[in-house]
Amino acid sequence: MQGNRLSEMLGVRYPIVKGGMAWCSGAKLAAAVSDAGGLGLIGGGSMEADLFREQIQKARRLTDKPVGVNIPLTFRQSKELIEVAAEEKVPVIFISAGSPKRYTSMFKELGAKVFHVVSTPEQAVKCEKAGVDGVVTEGFEAGGHNGREELTTMVLVAQTARLVSIPILAAGGIASGRQLAAVMALGAAGAQIGSRFAVTQESSAHEKFKQYCVEAGSDSTLVVLKKKIPVRMMDNPFRAGLIEAEHRGASGEELLEILGEGRPRRGMFEGDLVDGVLEIGQVTCMMDDIPTAKEVIDNIIKEYQEVRNSLPPL
Amino acid sequence: MQGNRLSEMLGVRYPIVKGGMAWCSGAKLAAAVSDAGGLGLIGGGSMEADLFREQIQKARRLTDKPVGVNIPLTFRQSKELIEVAAEEKVPVIFISAGSPKRYTSMFKELGAKVFHVVSTPEQAVKCEKAGVDGVVTEGFEAGGHNGREELTTMVLVAQTARLVSIPILAAGGIASGRQLAAVMALGAAGAQIGSRFAVTQESSAHEKFKQYCVEAGSDSTLVVLKKKIPVRMMDNPFRAGLIEAEHRGASGEELLEILGEGRPRRGMFEGDLVDGVLEIGQVTCMMDDIPTAKEVIDNIIKEYQEVRNSLPPL
Repeated sequence: MQGNRLSEMLGVRYPIVKGGMAWCSGAKLAAAVSDAGGLGLIGGGSMEADLFREQIQKARRLTDKPVGVNIPLTFRQSKELIEVAAEEKVPVIFISAGSPKRYTSMFKELGAKVFHVVSTPEQAVKCEKAGVDGVVTEGFEAGGHNGREELTTMVLVAQTARLVSIPILAAGGIASGRQLAAVMALGAAGAQIGSRFAVTQESSAHEKFKQYCVEAGSDSTLVVLKKKIPVRMMDNPFRAGLIEAEHRGASGEELLEILGEGRPRRGMFEGDLVDGVLEIGQVTCMMDDIPTAKEVIDNIIKEYQEVRNSLPPL
Repeated sequence: MQGNRLSEMLGVRYPIVKGGMAWCSGAKLAAAVSDAGGLGLIGGGSMEADLFREQIQKARRLTDKPVGVNIPLTFRQSKELIEVAAEEKVPVIFISAGSPKRYTSMFKELGAKVFHVVSTPEQAVKCEKAGVDGVVTEGFEAGGHNGREELTTMVLVAQTARLVSIPILAAGGIASGRQLAAVMALGAAGAQIGSRFAVTQESSAHEKFKQYCVEAGSDSTLVVLKKKIPVRMMDNPFRAGLIEAEHRGASGEELLEILGEGRPRRGMFEGDLVDGVLEIGQVTCMMDDIPTAKEVIDNIIKEYQEVRNSLPPL
C-alpha cells in the first residue's frame, strides 16, 4: 500500500506515526506530531488509567487533528487502558504484544482503526487474518523491547511486504528522509518513528536523557536481557552490571532481580543516567540536536522529497 | 556517490558486487556474476595460496569481464594471498578486517582499486583517510562474521553516508531489487550481496547447505560466539550446543574449544548439517529457490527499475 493511502486511512497528511514510547509520550508530544501532519500516539505503557484518560483528553484540547494511543498488552493495567481507549472513542489504537484476536473486533465495531506491533513476518500474517487494519514491523535496531528473532528492518519489512497486503508501518532505524524513502522502497506504506521524537522539545523525557542521546555514538546501544525480555538500552553503569551478570551466566530470574522495578522511569523520566534504564534505538547515533516535533517532520519530508526521484536508472 | 559512477570505477554494468563468502566463492561463481554485469569476488578466506592463484587464473579463462578478490586479514595465510593478488594484478581488492593503512598504497601503486569492509561509520572514516577507494558497510543482518556494535544496514549506511564521500557498498539484508533501492536511498552507491549468491547454481557450497537455506524461516539465523568472534549462523544441533554453553556462562576459550577447527568447511562445503557451521544472512528467509547467478542479477535489476520511480510524493 502506498503512503498516501495510509495517510487517508489514518486521517493525516504524512504517513508518519510517532510511537508510544514509555516516559516520552504524553499529550504534548502526541498533539505536536499530529499538528505537524503525522499521527501522534499517547503511550499507555507508562501510565495509570486515570492519567491515560487525562492525557487523551488533554491532547484533544491541544489539537483538532486525530491522536491515537499505544497499549502494550503485557502491561499489568492493559485491561483498564483498553477500557479507557474504548470509552474515549480513540480513533486509532496501536497494540503491542499479545494476540491480535483479542480486541480487534471490539475496536472495529467502535469505528476505530487497529494496528498491531510485530517483530516477525509470521506475526503480521496472523494480524491480517485477525482483521487488523495494519501492522507496525519493529526491527532489531529499535529501542526498548525487541523481538527474539532479531530481524532487522531491512529484512523484516521486505519479507512482510511479500506476505501481507494490509499497510505496513516500518519501525526501527528511521530518523531521516533517506530512511523513510528506504523503508517505502522495501514495501512499507510509512514509518513509525520513536527515538527521533523521544529527543524533541515536546518529549516528556528528562532533559538529561535527551542530552545523553544526542551525545551517543554508534556503539552506545545494545540488546540485553535476552534470557527474559530482550530490551535495547544505552550504555551506562547499570547496563554494564547487567552485561557482566549475563556474561557469567546469570539466570533469567537473577537478571530480573538486578533489573528490579521502576528503572525505566528512573532513567528516562527522572534523568538518572547511572542507575536508570535508558531505552533508545541505534539511530540515536544520527541525532545531534533536540528539535521540535514539527522540525523533525519537516526535515524528514524535505529530505524524502529530495531522495524519492534521485535513484539512478541502472 | 551514484550507482553509475561506482559501476564506472569498477568497470562493470551494475553496482552489484558478489561478496567473497568462504566455501561458496570459487572462480565459477565469481565469473558468472561478472559475466552477468556485476563484480564477482573470489573468496580468499577459505583457500590456500596455490588454490587462490589457480582460481584467479581460472576465472580469467571463464570471463573477459573484471573479477576481484576478497582477503580477510585475520586469515592466517593473508600475507601469501596478498602477494598472489599483487602478482596476478587483480584489478579490485576487497579487504576484510585489519587496518586500511596496511596495503592500500601498495595496491593503488599497482593500479588496483581497494575496498575495505567495515561495520561502523567510524571505521569508514578511517578508511577514507587512508585513501581506500570505497567501503563495504556490513550490517548486523549479514551472514558470517559480524561487528560487535551490531549496527544494522538501515542505520550503518545512512550514518556512514553522512561521514564519507567515497562510495559505499551496502552489505547485509540485500537479496531483492527493493532492498537494492532501499540501500541506495540510504546513500549507498550499490550493494555487496552474499547470501543470495551463496545459494545459486554456480556457488561451490554443498547442495544440502543450499537446500537448507531455501527451507530456512525468519527465525533460522542468530549471531553467536559474541564473547570471541561474533558469527551469524543457522540453527542446527551444533549451534544449539553452542548457545547452551553460552547460556550457562562458558568462557570465550571454552567456546572456541567447542567450535574447534574446520567446522565451516564441514557445514557449508561438505554438507554436514548436524555438526557443521552454516553461515548465512537473515535474508535467507526470503530465498525460495536455487537460481543461476545471472537470474539473481536480472531479477534484482528488474525489480529495482520498477521500484525506483514508484515512491509517492508526500
